[in-house]
Amino acid sequence: MTGSLTVVGLGPGDAGLLTESARRALDAAEDLVGYVPYVARVPERPGLVRHASDNRVEIDRARHALELAASGRRVAVVSGGDPGVFAMAAAVFEAVEHGEPGWRDLTITVEPGITAMLAAAARLGAPLGGDFCALSLSDNLKPWPVVTARLEAVLRADLVVALYNPISSARPWQLGAAFEIAAGIRAPETPVIFARAVSRPDEAIRVTTLAEASHAPADMATVVILGASGTRLIPRAGKAPYVYTLRSVAAV
Amino acid sequence: MTGSLTVVGLGPGDAGLLTESARRALDAAEDLVGYVPYVARVPERPGLVRHASDNRVEIDRARHALELAASGRRVAVVSGGDPGVFAMAAAVFEAVEHGEPGWRDLTITVEPGITAMLAAAARLGAPLGGDFCALSLSDNLKPWPVVTARLEAVLRADLVVALYNPISSARPWQLGAAFEIAAGIRAPETPVIFARAVSRPDEAIRVTTLAEASHAPADMATVVILGASGTRLIPRAGKAPYVYTLRSVAAV
Repeated sequence: MTGSLTVVGLGPGDAGLLTESARRALDAAEDLVGYVPYVARVPERPGLVRHASDNRVEIDRARHALELAASGRRVAVVSGGDPGVFAMAAAVFEAVEHGEPGWRDLTITVEPGITAMLAAAARLGAPLGGDFCALSLSDNLKPWPVVTARLEAVLRADLVVALYNPISSARPWQLGAAFEIAAGIRAPETPVIFARAVSRPDEAIRVTTLAEASHAPADMATVVILGASGTRLIPRAGKAPYVYTLRSVAAV
Repeated sequence: MTGSLTVVGLGPGDAGLLTESARRALDAAEDLVGYVPYVARVPERPGLVRHASDNRVEIDRARHALELAASGRRVAVVSGGDPGVFAMAAAVFEAVEHGEPGWRDLTITVEPGITAMLAAAARLGAPLGGDFCALSLSDNLKPWPVVTARLEAVLRADLVVALYNPISSARPWQLGAAFEIAAGIRAPETPVIFARAVSRPDEAIRVTTLAEASHAPADMATVVILGASGTRLIPRAGKAPYVYTLRSVAAV
């Protein structure tokens, strides 16, 4: 088998936020595999075969990409943000573990990308400036009691919390439930950031408080960042405030 | 004031892992401010004034950069990895909050970068494939009991844990203490990754187990990733294993 598979992080959307290494991997690909809107981000060119598929078929998509690579093709699996953060890389390796033994001999590489929480944080200042975590709020792949137990643990430990997959039409109530849990642990004035489609034409960023968070709009393209006790706003005349989290924690 | 300040993420080291937007910010800078080895990564060119300083003077460095910007200069503060993750962005905004009122009117932007844990994860597979967190193990800016309480909380919540600043000559024992805490909570065969200087000429990556972790070398250029219960190795003939974390969590 002489084919190869690269899982490429496209970053949050703007072409300028792609790494040079990711761009080279896209330029070298013969087959492009991914969720429809990610495949659409890569310009068409002669010799590039596009395989766009629906969301929520990650393992099928990964197996298809591995089959193409095993047949000798140079395959790029495209992922928004960073492919290792709630995206395609884990699905590819899960497919490798449970798939054809020969797939383990393929050259599989991962090109990292700017994941949504980093892009959102950069737009606002430095809200991830202290210890932080990334949790997926989806209960498609883990039981809801696990989601809430993890959320409570990191809230009590005073980490900044980035919530991925906060809401979808099939999961309309989980984000509100998460805010209720947070309201029992963190102060009502805690900054909460809603960052949607960062760096894309429809970017929308909103900074609110935990007390008001349940009124803010969110969707699957949104990452929600819950501040910690050290997260601060810097007001500015006529401009959106900066948001950052103190690097230091005082002795208790 | 017509100057500007951009905090630029240089990524883990290889020039190919810089974003195009970060490269443009470096090309536009008149003054380059940062820790010696980061400033050294940016090629010299006519018209670029370099201000390299020692580590552990982040606030002084931030104030110097803001003074330069306030005097009308186009300043780039350079940071390894992502500037918002245990790096210079939070120091810059802390300096803004407590500094000259006019600094709030400056145009301050942050160019995100590939932070160490994402670069390390990409080299190995997808070890951050589930919920995860990033903790700094340094007790320079927070009391050690806060560090250990956070570590215990995220270990019990079964998050993958990326440890930044794991060890230094001034803090030789904290990493061993962290492994002891982890050994009381996670299984001895839990995968542990030591990723040093990823993408640089002296890159060294080692995958071991929690039981053996205290024997592996680490320094300030190392990020340590502690696997969760769903972190798995895929053995490969004659090659390093892939490491990934399952996206799904079984019902308990």
